[in-house]
Amino acid sequence: MNKHALPPYAQARQPRRARYDEETINDILDCSLVGHVGFIADGRPMVVPMAYARWGRTVYLHGATKTRIVALHSDGDPITMTVTLLEGIVAARSGFHHSMNYRAATVHGVTRLVTDPGEVEQALKLITEHLLPLRWNEVRPMYDKERKATGVLALEIEAASAKLRQAPPADDPEDHDLPIWAGVIPIVTSLGAPVGDGIGPDVPPPPSTHLARKKFA
Amino acid sequence: MNKHALPPYAQARQPRRARYDEETINDILDCSLVGHVGFIADGRPMVVPMAYARWGRTVYLHGATKTRIVALHSDGDPITMTVTLLEGIVAARSGFHHSMNYRAATVHGVTRLVTDPGEVEQALKLITEHLLPLRWNEVRPMYDKERKATGVLALEIEAASAKLRQAPPADDPEDHDLPIWAGVIPIVTSLGAPVGDGIGPDVPPPPSTHLARKKFA
Repeated sequence: MNKHALPPYAQARQPRRARYDEETINDILDCSLVGHVGFIADGRPMVVPMAYARWGRTVYLHGATKTRIVALHSDGDPITMTVTLLEGIVAARSGFHHSMNYRAATVHGVTRLVTDPGEVEQALKLITEHLLPLRWNEVRPMYDKERKATGVLALEIEAASAKLRQAPPADDPEDHDLPIWAGVIPIVTSLGAPVGDGIGPDVPPPPSTHLARKKFA
Repeated sequence: MNKHALPPYAQARQPRRARYDEETINDILDCSLVGHVGFIADGRPMVVPMAYARWGRTVYLHGATKTRIVALHSDGDPITMTVTLLEGIVAARSGFHHSMNYRAATVHGVTRLVTDPGEVEQALKLITEHLLPLRWNEVRPMYDKERKATGVLALEIEAASAKLRQAPPADDPEDHDLPIWAGVIPIVTSLGAPVGDGIGPDVPPPPSTHLARKKFA
């Protein structure tokens, strides 16, 4: 997507950190575990952490049918989601140049309540398998009453952007000779070994848990 | 804070996961590296990942003076911030009961542009030391021009809540005997060994880097 084809609200202020290509944006969306979803309720901004999954230019969200975001929305309401992968604390020789290394993606769009039973089930499968690849066929089939208790919302992407900083500190050259340490403290997020709940038959952790550990490694 | 003293928008829907005591909320705010800040711009919801620091019932945010959130706000605009600490993927025997373990805190309030030079410097010190404890006195003093290029926004907290899930899967009892693995895959976030930028005098990583690794361990 060309930056200048985007509405102003979707353009980044710092062009050197911004990316607008789908590959970069989708990679960030597909690699993160949680999205921070923003919407407006009664004139106030709301930000809710949610599981999600991307399918083409749609992001699926779900919640109990009574949650604010599901119950109170109208189709076409503006909605946004930001996902952030933190990669490091950037310590510079001046307070001013302290920063973070990260990859973040923001999508802007409108809501659509998903009502088709087939799309609902597909969305729930995608959200589950975003966290645990291939999990859907490892578990018991969904009951109708469960499907009815779950609201699925589609965020139809209208504009998207990514912001990346992956670099050492950007100190002023005249500070380089100061006897002050500067560098990056890496932030590492990983999945630990699966811990069974100790209930029922003794079954080993299935492929989905191994695939998740690989995916988010 | 008593739940019923809060405005409806700040009350959680699922009472068993909600907490309203300041100790729980502040602990989450003080332990996270990044906040997702929500505001409204031109009628649209915006969510921006930001560094921050809490001081009493104020959350300080900063950005270049030209950023949207600093340049376009008016004092008293509604603003919100959510911080989320992910702790595990919860794999159940049914798709329906899949979940995440996490601690999240949301603060709602209004903006105030910080203009007093003393409060600006104090806020910038707090934000830096939220990431790197005691860092401020390790670096060179701030220039006036740097202070002028940095906008500091206070989010004055009016209402806050936390949501926690820290438990094994909550399967239906009739699913317990199915030959399906269920449990938690822990999500672990940690700081790696500091990586110097290799410029200037050879100085070892200072106390702030060790303190950060302890704080976010």
